Amino acid sequence: MKLKEVLLQTSERIDDLLTHELGIIQSEEVFSFSMDAVLLARFASVPRRGRILDMCTGNGVVPILLSTRTGAPIEGIEIQPRLADMARRSVTMNGLQEQITIHEGDLRELYKEKGYGAYDLITVNPPYMPMNGSDLKLNEHQAIARHEIHCTLAEVIEACAKLLRQGGKMSMVHKPLRLAEIITLMSKYRIEPKVIRFVHPRVDMEANMVLIEGIRDGKPEVRLKPPLIVYDDQGNYGPDFMEIYYGSHEDETKE
Amino acid sequence: MKLKEVLLQTSERIDDLLTHELGIIQSEEVFSFSMDAVLLARFASVPRRGRILDMCTGNGVVPILLSTRTGAPIEGIEIQPRLADMARRSVTMNGLQEQITIHEGDLRELYKEKGYGAYDLITVNPPYMPMNGSDLKLNEHQAIARHEIHCTLAEVIEACAKLLRQGGKMSMVHKPLRLAEIITLMSKYRIEPKVIRFVHPRVDMEANMVLIEGIRDGKPEVRLKPPLIVYDDQGNYGPDFMEIYYGSHEDETKE
Repeated sequence: MKLKEVLLQTSERIDDLLTHELGIIQSEEVFSFSMDAVLLARFASVPRRGRILDMCTGNGVVPILLSTRTGAPIEGIEIQPRLADMARRSVTMNGLQEQITIHEGDLRELYKEKGYGAYDLITVNPPYMPMNGSDLKLNEHQAIARHEIHCTLAEVIEACAKLLRQGGKMSMVHKPLRLAEIITLMSKYRIEPKVIRFVHPRVDMEANMVLIEGIRDGKPEVRLKPPLIVYDDQGNYGPDFMEIYYGSHEDETKE
Repeated sequence: MKLKEVLLQTSERIDDLLTHELGIIQSEEVFSFSMDAVLLARFASVPRRGRILDMCTGNGVVPILLSTRTGAPIEGIEIQPRLADMARRSVTMNGLQEQITIHEGDLRELYKEKGYGAYDLITVNPPYMPMNGSDLKLNEHQAIARHEIHCTLAEVIEACAKLLRQGGKMSMVHKPLRLAEIITLMSKYRIEPKVIRFVHPRVDMEANMVLIEGIRDGKPEVRLKPPLIVYDDQGNYGPDFMEIYYGSHEDETKE
């Protein structure tokens, strides 16, 4: 890695993103990305031009990975100051400050500053769990990333609907458990689901992740992609998963 | 097969259902079942007791297959007189007239006769295609089975909502292309999607069929079952598919 020098805070470490010599600042206590974010960054239909926004950006992993697929400007928005700061330092460390801008703020309010229809693509890896009771094992940072404390699924989708231009795309990773809500809300806010891919740990197991992309004011027609199988029979990463997770197809749309 | 004698009309033939020595009257010109109906009959959560209805029953293939999984009474409803007659003769031929009753009529009107909440399970393999233009290759019987001529998807789901008791199940086979409409309509009519399984011709191909089951007034939580893969790499039926298509697990819930 040819990373620029950057100050690390307590508990932080630098991890290798294993592609394009990119690195990322992580912290088990505050935030570290999961496979979900990487799969989202590969799944999204990235435009060559136009404006891209990543909501709930955390430590900025999705914008940093998206930068390998496009020359378009990418913004990230994160409500936690501690994480927005981590994300900014990761952007600087990778020398991407010309392409990536991190906002600290509330995704529900962003349309007031940026205007309706400001974006061509919005990616989002939102908190998966509703606010029912508290998980005592989690600290505040972790709880906000996992539970709908600062925004619900409905609020995320409504915010996307405001911020996307007509024909713009929303790409999300979430839990299949909430599929009916996701689709109902996307339809309600006129972001028509167009491409769906389920992630199964093994071919004979239920899906534990869903990748879904919708188009603002699109025609209601779903393409249900081949299942993405993580492990083969021997417990190794499957070839299809390897290609997507570590693959080099990400330059296709790069300017 | 130990089938009872039955009169066949022009173009009709008797096919072996390849399970429990069951047969079925088919006709290329009028109606012959597809894999979709067989997978639906295996997928549905069949109750031991209670009442079962199969909508759009065609030549009665789903009720006849369901009879191998339960002792509960099964009804079928079919709007085309020619097909309802075929279905009745198939029921008689298999000696199932004590368990299976075929109604000739409009599924949208059935609640007036049977009452709200009359059924514990409704299965349905509805026409897949909206009414946009006419397909000149199809005769009237084929067109009604494939296009939403006599009932739309919304009308099918609304009819199920009226006919299902609270906690009763609706099990449907359809095209993934229409997944967003299916889920939105099921939620609208308070049949909460609970179990979904996609059928892929091969593991690396998009799904071309979806099996979906919802519960009347259920809690919104989807279980996304392992993909059902039809063909293996060599173009033979896969083991999982063979077990489901020809398998002998169908006796588990039989009284």
